Amino acid sequence: MTLQLSQISEIVDGELVGDPDLLVYGANPPEEALANEITLLDDAKQTQLIVDSDALAVVTKETADLPGVSQVIVSNPHSAFAKLVSFFRPPVDSEVPGSGIDATAEIDPTATVHPTAVIAAGVKIGPGCRVMPGVVVMPRCEIGSECVLHSGVTLYEYTRLGDRVVIHAGAVLGAYGFGYRQHEGRHLPTAQLGFVHVESDVEIGATTTIDRGTYGSTRIGEGTKIDNQVMIGHNCQIGRHNLICSQVGIAGSCRTGDYVVLAGQVGLKDHIHLGNQTIVGAQAGVMDDCEGNQVLLGSPATNQREQMQIMAVERRLPEMRRDLKKLQREVDAQRQQLGELGEGRQAA
Amino acid sequence: MTLQLSQISEIVDGELVGDPDLLVYGANPPEEALANEITLLDDAKQTQLIVDSDALAVVTKETADLPGVSQVIVSNPHSAFAKLVSFFRPPVDSEVPGSGIDATAEIDPTATVHPTAVIAAGVKIGPGCRVMPGVVVMPRCEIGSECVLHSGVTLYEYTRLGDRVVIHAGAVLGAYGFGYRQHEGRHLPTAQLGFVHVESDVEIGATTTIDRGTYGSTRIGEGTKIDNQVMIGHNCQIGRHNLICSQVGIAGSCRTGDYVVLAGQVGLKDHIHLGNQTIVGAQAGVMDDCEGNQVLLGSPATNQREQMQIMAVERRLPEMRRDLKKLQREVDAQRQQLGELGEGRQAA
Amino acid sequence: MTLQLSQISEIVDGELVGDPDLLVYGANPPEEALANEITLLDDAKQTQLIVDSDALAVVTKETADLPGVSQVIVSNPHSAFAKLVSFFRPPVDSEVPGSGIDATAEIDPTATVHPTAVIAAGVKIGPGCRVMPGVVVMPRCEIGSECVLHSGVTLYEYTRLGDRVVIHAGAVLGAYGFGYRQHEGRHLPTAQLGFVHVESDVEIGATTTIDRGTYGSTRIGEGTKIDNQVMIGHNCQIGRHNLICSQVGIAGSCRTGDYVVLAGQVGLKDHIHLGNQTIVGAQAGVMDDCEGNQVLLGSPATNQREQMQIMAVERRLPEMRRDLKKLQREVDAQRQQLGELGEGRQAA
Repeated sequence: MTLQLSQISEIVDGELVGDPDLLVYGANPPEEALANEITLLDDAKQTQLIVDSDALAVVTKETADLPGVSQVIVSNPHSAFAKLVSFFRPPVDSEVPGSGIDATAEIDPTATVHPTAVIAAGVKIGPGCRVMPGVVVMPRCEIGSECVLHSGVTLYEYTRLGDRVVIHAGAVLGAYGFGYRQHEGRHLPTAQLGFVHVESDVEIGATTTIDRGTYGSTRIGEGTKIDNQVMIGHNCQIGRHNLICSQVGIAGSCRTGDYVVLAGQVGLKDHIHLGNQTIVGAQAGVMDDCEGNQVLLGSPATNQREQMQIMAVERRLPEMRRDLKKLQREVDAQRQQLGELGEGRQAA
Repeated sequence: MTLQLSQISEIVDGELVGDPDLLVYGANPPEEALANEITLLDDAKQTQLIVDSDALAVVTKETADLPGVSQVIVSNPHSAFAKLVSFFRPPVDSEVPGSGIDATAEIDPTATVHPTAVIAAGVKIGPGCRVMPGVVVMPRCEIGSECVLHSGVTLYEYTRLGDRVVIHAGAVLGAYGFGYRQHEGRHLPTAQLGFVHVESDVEIGATTTIDRGTYGSTRIGEGTKIDNQVMIGHNCQIGRHNLICSQVGIAGSCRTGDYVVLAGQVGLKDHIHLGNQTIVGAQAGVMDDCEGNQVLLGSPATNQREQMQIMAVERRLPEMRRDLKKLQREVDAQRQQLGELGEGRQAA
Repeated sequence: MTLQLSQISEIVDGELVGDPDLLVYGANPPEEALANEITLLDDAKQTQLIVDSDALAVVTKETADLPGVSQVIVSNPHSAFAKLVSFFRPPVDSEVPGSGIDATAEIDPTATVHPTAVIAAGVKIGPGCRVMPGVVVMPRCEIGSECVLHSGVTLYEYTRLGDRVVIHAGAVLGAYGFGYRQHEGRHLPTAQLGFVHVESDVEIGATTTIDRGTYGSTRIGEGTKIDNQVMIGHNCQIGRHNLICSQVGIAGSCRTGDYVVLAGQVGLKDHIHLGNQTIVGAQAGVMDDCEGNQVLLGSPATNQREQMQIMAVERRLPEMRRDLKKLQREVDAQRQQLGELGEGRQAA
């Protein structure tokens, strides 16, 4: 599907600054925009990111300094961009798929699909895959080779899996992100038009949930291993070869580098960035970015050395309080003595 | 189904203080008892609640001062009340429903139900609903209009959904509450006879679990949005327009007001009450009630101002300990000096 | 299936120290090895455990002092032992079971199995069991009498349930443990050849996950009750009559005694041992073993008395810091006074 920029401008009722004849092949957020795609500018801080991207056009509220990038000016960029994303990746979850394998699905003959699984329209499943009982693969999902989907896994529409991905029972990929805006006292869901992209050699534990991106992907990098009951929020970009232990919760739009380790029950605030080889200790709550090559502990998390010292003192707090009280009494006594000495001296 | 109060008295082998001819239409806990229903008094603190309710009778261990309310006196009120609840809402989960849609279910013709879903006896599903693959709706559930049940959702018997409720894949509503009493070294399950009631415009995330009430409802108020992997215990009464983020755990019998926000991984102790517009920060553990219009942080949680001060000092604990040690040395030195001065003075 | 020790030695390419004609009936880790079984020695600390066990032979890297136990010496004991475990309990999860009940499954005529459930090859289901819609029971599982498997439960291969076990909707037993070794920058899964063994009268909450053991069992002791969204890692040995509340996470190889209580959102580090009647408070993080009969609180958890004192001081930290500052000023003032007095005295 392609649109001319002039058509896009019409669809979103915008003012075009740029070449009306340019052909647009897709709509994606700045981090993911490919050549010949249109993207979204909703934050001045992202101007450079967009210039560096391959995007040929942008939806924006005000004209910005974006050399070589056409601009479609609109009053509500998010609602306009959501329209374009929906044009290029149309909503399909209301196409309730029929039982068994849809006629338009392409299943490699070496793949095995259990008869109780549901494979919806337009799905592609590669060689050697095994799809266990009760699995639901919604429309337009693409699955590489040698993947295993254990019982009861759900892939929402447009989910992409690389090769040799293993997903354990009950995991859910692609549910809507938890994003709302308040309007007249009610929470209205914001657009949740993206998808989940899992790269090759990833393993995902039982009942783990990974939400779709807002406009583009929530991505799990190659070789990353995810334990049971992990929650990964919308738009997260998880790096390669991470180890994410059970019951970790990662809020929306977080990014991790490569070889990051998150121990059990760790929580990450939204929009956190953890650099390569960051290690986060069990139950820690990460509230700030980390450059990497560090161990973080505690809630709120700080680096290990600092936190170990803090924890060591915490254990001795009752003793410390007693010491302080004792010292206060001592100083009071000395004040008394000093007073007497002073008086004595004056008397002398 | 109706019973005369005299019949009820016989069923539970109780002594009746009141009018034997009164007609009773249901049995519900004090907070939920409607007119012409019988309720339970197991805690003197609830006397006023019962007087204020519409209940016409009460099951109790001892006669209480309850003007206008008939009383059925029994030795074990919980076991007696459980019998009555079971009479009015008979256990049905052992009726394993047949495949597909049971003949006694009433499905609006504009609703779509996937052929792999199981819709049990007596279920009602309203206009425009979509029931995705692998969904299981147990007997006597009632679902309003325009609801969406994503893949693999389970609704236990008697679950009620309002209109426009969206439930994501793998969520479970109505499993038994976690309630046991110990008897000769074994944990025996207490009665779990209630149900889950979800009001209109609620959204529920993937693999979230909401347990049924003990006798009556676990209720989710209108417009409340619940993220993935949230756990809500039995008897909870969640208010309207709450935002409950991922991996929050709410123990049994908690109540929240309207516009309450619980950030990720928050825990609430059982029987906690949070007033309107309470906001609880990520990973906090709430151990005490809160009147509302406050931000709570930390575990155990206190108000934001207090907690921010505590956290600020915690980060400086190692420094504070060094200061204390230094001060101790200083005071020791001064004691020495004082001693010398005192001796000098005496010498003088 | 049986093997002579000489055959075993050949299979793993090992050097045999012992009787080649001994008949071996199984391979299990030291804690679980029965008579006529072979076990693994990979840690000198386990020598006594093996001598005390009924094992007749051991796979080991170096000859050890193990009177009465034959030894098979190999260069890589884990890989050799994994081979033997796989011989006695062959991998079967790639046998995608057909729809409905496999012809080789043995279902007691008094059990009810919903037509949408999948019961795989070699499964045994005892009298009075109820298997609800969408349940998947993988090959070779053994289920006792009067068990209830609610909708969408998955039992991976070789899972064993005692009698009267209740498992709520969406729970997953027997997924692979989260064990990897790093090789040339990639995480390679270690052998996950064990199974889950749930003893009688256990109840398991909705979407709870219990991973299989590495070579042998992950075991849940008789009468233990587990709430929703609990995660129990591979090799854990949970005692009898425990109460494990919602969202608890127990890392691999932990052991608990009898009557242990873990409150909501508690986390246990791997290899922790909690003695009989240990009680752990909500959100606590257990990093050290506990002998039992104690209440643990906090993260890292310490005993209740200590932790209550620490928490009491924590709440007063801002006040304590002010006191310290005030004291510092007081001591500074006294230093000044002392200096003046000293000078005065010298002057005198």
